[in-house]
Amino acid sequence: MNSQLDRNAKGVYLITVTPFTDSGALDLASTDRMVDFCLDKGVTGLTILGIMGEAPKLTMEESRTFVKQVLARVNGRVPVVVGASSPGFAPMKELTQSVMALGAAGVMVAPPSTVRTDDQITAYFDMVNETLGADVPWVLQDHPVATGVLMSTGVILKILKNSPGCVMLKHEDSPGLAKLSAIRAASDKGELKRVSILTGNGGGLFLPEELTRGADGAMTGFAYPEMMVDVCAAHAAGNVERAHDLFDAYLPLARYEQQANIGLAVRKHILMKRGVIASEAVRKPGPKLSAQDMADIARLTARQDKRLAELG
Amino acid sequence: MNSQLDRNAKGVYLITVTPFTDSGALDLASTDRMVDFCLDKGVTGLTILGIMGEAPKLTMEESRTFVKQVLARVNGRVPVVVGASSPGFAPMKELTQSVMALGAAGVMVAPPSTVRTDDQITAYFDMVNETLGADVPWVLQDHPVATGVLMSTGVILKILKNSPGCVMLKHEDSPGLAKLSAIRAASDKGELKRVSILTGNGGGLFLPEELTRGADGAMTGFAYPEMMVDVCAAHAAGNVERAHDLFDAYLPLARYEQQANIGLAVRKHILMKRGVIASEAVRKPGPKLSAQDMADIARLTARQDKRLAELG
Amino acid sequence: MNSQLDRNAKGVYLITVTPFTDSGALDLASTDRMVDFCLDKGVTGLTILGIMGEAPKLTMEESRTFVKQVLARVNGRVPVVVGASSPGFAPMKELTQSVMALGAAGVMVAPPSTVRTDDQITAYFDMVNETLGADVPWVLQDHPVATGVLMSTGVILKILKNSPGCVMLKHEDSPGLAKLSAIRAASDKGELKRVSILTGNGGGLFLPEELTRGADGAMTGFAYPEMMVDVCAAHAAGNVERAHDLFDAYLPLARYEQQANIGLAVRKHILMKRGVIASEAVRKPGPKLSAQDMADIARLTARQDKRLAELG
Amino acid sequence: MNSQLDRNAKGVYLITVTPFTDSGALDLASTDRMVDFCLDKGVTGLTILGIMGEAPKLTMEESRTFVKQVLARVNGRVPVVVGASSPGFAPMKELTQSVMALGAAGVMVAPPSTVRTDDQITAYFDMVNETLGADVPWVLQDHPVATGVLMSTGVILKILKNSPGCVMLKHEDSPGLAKLSAIRAASDKGELKRVSILTGNGGGLFLPEELTRGADGAMTGFAYPEMMVDVCAAHAAGNVERAHDLFDAYLPLARYEQQANIGLAVRKHILMKRGVIASEAVRKPGPKLSAQDMADIARLTARQDKRLAELG
Repeated sequence: MNSQLDRNAKGVYLITVTPFTDSGALDLASTDRMVDFCLDKGVTGLTILGIMGEAPKLTMEESRTFVKQVLARVNGRVPVVVGASSPGFAPMKELTQSVMALGAAGVMVAPPSTVRTDDQITAYFDMVNETLGADVPWVLQDHPVATGVLMSTGVILKILKNSPGCVMLKHEDSPGLAKLSAIRAASDKGELKRVSILTGNGGGLFLPEELTRGADGAMTGFAYPEMMVDVCAAHAAGNVERAHDLFDAYLPLARYEQQANIGLAVRKHILMKRGVIASEAVRKPGPKLSAQDMADIARLTARQDKRLAELG
Repeated sequence: MNSQLDRNAKGVYLITVTPFTDSGALDLASTDRMVDFCLDKGVTGLTILGIMGEAPKLTMEESRTFVKQVLARVNGRVPVVVGASSPGFAPMKELTQSVMALGAAGVMVAPPSTVRTDDQITAYFDMVNETLGADVPWVLQDHPVATGVLMSTGVILKILKNSPGCVMLKHEDSPGLAKLSAIRAASDKGELKRVSILTGNGGGLFLPEELTRGADGAMTGFAYPEMMVDVCAAHAAGNVERAHDLFDAYLPLARYEQQANIGLAVRKHILMKRGVIASEAVRKPGPKLSAQDMADIARLTARQDKRLAELG
Repeated sequence: MNSQLDRNAKGVYLITVTPFTDSGALDLASTDRMVDFCLDKGVTGLTILGIMGEAPKLTMEESRTFVKQVLARVNGRVPVVVGASSPGFAPMKELTQSVMALGAAGVMVAPPSTVRTDDQITAYFDMVNETLGADVPWVLQDHPVATGVLMSTGVILKILKNSPGCVMLKHEDSPGLAKLSAIRAASDKGELKRVSILTGNGGGLFLPEELTRGADGAMTGFAYPEMMVDVCAAHAAGNVERAHDLFDAYLPLARYEQQANIGLAVRKHILMKRGVIASEAVRKPGPKLSAQDMADIARLTARQDKRLAELG
Repeated sequence: MNSQLDRNAKGVYLITVTPFTDSGALDLASTDRMVDFCLDKGVTGLTILGIMGEAPKLTMEESRTFVKQVLARVNGRVPVVVGASSPGFAPMKELTQSVMALGAAGVMVAPPSTVRTDDQITAYFDMVNETLGADVPWVLQDHPVATGVLMSTGVILKILKNSPGCVMLKHEDSPGLAKLSAIRAASDKGELKRVSILTGNGGGLFLPEELTRGADGAMTGFAYPEMMVDVCAAHAAGNVERAHDLFDAYLPLARYEQQANIGLAVRKHILMKRGVIASEAVRKPGPKLSAQDMADIARLTARQDKRLAELG
């Protein structure tokens, strides 16, 4: 029996990378190690085949192989969400049915860059509902930096109300704090069914403030998932200053890892250094780190270790 | 033995639609009728699975089925080009190998919207060359309206020089006349190997002027492919005024069919009215015509018939 | 006493160019000739300092001089609208007060590219209303190609309802026919006060169809304003086929003049050839025509003359 | 005699806000206080009328008044750079001549969003050189997030080589570290005249890494200019770890102040709290802070004070 994705989901759904060998092939041994690593660090879910998972660079067959491997290794211990955004509904349906059959807990959908007005956006998600049906739990991804689609608070509330299967909002808009407060308030006031809100604003760069505004946790990627896990735990325990202390210790590196374009290479480099994945290879077209970049990372991780030791 | 795509290609490579039944399934009988219709009208090639072919709305399996059906019906009489633009190189390679094995004459590649600077664009096409190899003939698609990528004349010349397999330029930039003249001149002066230049600027809305600038023909879609065929023939025969006369007769409808967003619905509606395809269905998300739109089309086709009769 | 801009405005409001001398100075003698030319051809209004009027390339002082010159020459015979779009409200107010004091009939405002969602757009126009007050008649410009702002039918209706001073819609969205029908219907059904709708879709490339949908006329630029005047007149007289005949005669050149980027140079070149302005100079950064471009224009104008003679 | 802007400029050129009263009028008393505050904190230059200075929201007259006031208060103690980006060259020239006559040390120019290809960008800056002449020192602003214009390293080097008056690069591209390294290296190798490189990547969010790559300092805004001054000083003294310690102490607040859209409101709120400006008013259209935002800021400034005290 698999873990369910539901409206009360909390904690950290880590956006994982897709490990490759140095020659660019899928690395399934590293995939297993990565799953174990994430679960050891305390994540409460995984999200695979997102943008940071290099999904568009995989063949159909590779995507299926990777999903299978992750689901087998997770073995029902936590819910696994699969990215299913697609320019067409036939491929979206095909992918969704395939991953749900394999044991995914749900899918994640962002709007295509071609929709712009409020009407276009809500009409698009009406078609998503028609495509996915009411039985597939899904995550609405609000990520304007990647999609170019700005969804106002009102539009998101409308989509949530109209979508029986949408149980979670991945909130990545910026500045998103006001939006997050407004959606949380509407959900608390019973204007719509409760929805889980996990945040990824700037790759988690606003996590403590977002938790204070009512977020249920984070859905984002970072080479140190324990940061999000520990910040969420301290915050949930009422220790807000401790949550900030931990967050601040990781912030210099998190900021470095969130640089546009080279961010994924930074993340994979650190995961390799931590022994999680065997190779830092990113498929083309993709960034490569220079010696200077690696020196920056070495300095930042050393400083991070020192600061965490000071904090205890 | 299949028709080859080569550097001397001339005439009209029609961008075809993908016919669906009213319920949205692939319509293979209409596909055969469409192929016959195009060949009857005198096209010298076909291009399938382009943007106007609703490629992103097909499943992998449907794409393969459609390509097979077209290639079988064409049966080597004219070259068939297949759109292979993709955000990743693994899927691009997979699709290319698959369609070439089925008998395609070549593939067409446009840059992804994520490349912007000259260096990024040329680096991208270096990777395309690496992916396709030197043996697959391919078409460089320069279509900024759809891709958001502006390729200067200098960049296009650089790509053409660096790409042994690139035998054709699909020229859709606007204003593209100056660019077309410059690329043709460079090719004529021997600065690079000859390349076939087929144009699609605004869906062929500048065809006579483009032929005067040295284009070898058109690669675009229109519910009246005979327009492009006849204009090219008149022009090639040195009868430039006749080419303009014919073009002008079709221009009011061509302009109407080139409207952003509803254009494809207009094209399919006319093809249905002409008995080529059984249904005018466009897959979601896609446009629908109103009764007023259909009345406009009826008026314009009636006027077009009248004007063509006057011209003889 | 000046002509008023009101909710019943009809006919052709020509978007004028701003004439320069060969050395790039404002050419006031050509400005006078251009005003006379437009009025002789039968336009019912003028719109100055729009995008095609090179407004952003003028100094404050030059703008004021040009507005004064046009208003003096028009001398109240037709309403003159002045473009007042601005990234800030203080400059918008300053410019509006200045031109209204000089005798303008109203101003035209397009949204800035920074607004995206329905809420942002309507909030922006609330601030426009606050800035302009209820006494300045203004034109809402819906021109997504230039602004990047998509205003849905619902948003436009909301703006029109909330804006006591907005008496006219310059409709340039594409595909805009459905939108035009919907707004006209809402106005006819009394859902909002009547508003004049003048169209400029693709520079008037859909004028006959737009008139059939209920447009009151055109607000756009073309080196042959008599085209729009005569098409509107034939249509108003119930002679729809004649309106199409005239339109079709001008369409090949109109299409050529609507090319992105070089369009303004084409327009100024023709106006110079017609003796309206002394120089075809466009201020930098701006396009220049090649000998081939000029040959195209010469061919198209000769063909146009011939076709108009045939039509009688 | 005024301070000069030259190729060896170092330290911190602060991008200032433009202070308004609560009712939205220019606040000249706060302007004076702000100038004194910046100079007290040790900035080596000021940059006014940038995007964060709400320049487009000022009337011509207000701009001139503000520039005069700042220059009078600075009284030649540090160079003052004025933003002169403009869609047209006539207004750019007018503004430049006006502010240079008033005593500005130079102007700053970013490319307009309409240029895209390498050729378009370099052609644009050829026209900038023509407009400004060789005697006005100017700053090239590379800020793709705001302009949408991506300038590759090669393009920037070309502009620098072709521009006798361009003495400084304001480097705000992201990820910009590799670009910064390449430009610094080209300048060090004598491929071009030395140019001062001041950085503003993410509002200074990468300052220590940028200094390591050879940046001469920062040109950006932050409510705590002493952060940049102290980080630059520690780095210049060879105390890189100390530079990082200081930077990290300010980073949580700096990150908060760099949020898209509300960032300027955060900055003005803090400057008001610090007693620098009388009102936190931002002109419309502009953001407003909520009580929750203010609580966030209060927490972050308290934590920052504590951490700085720990560091000594």
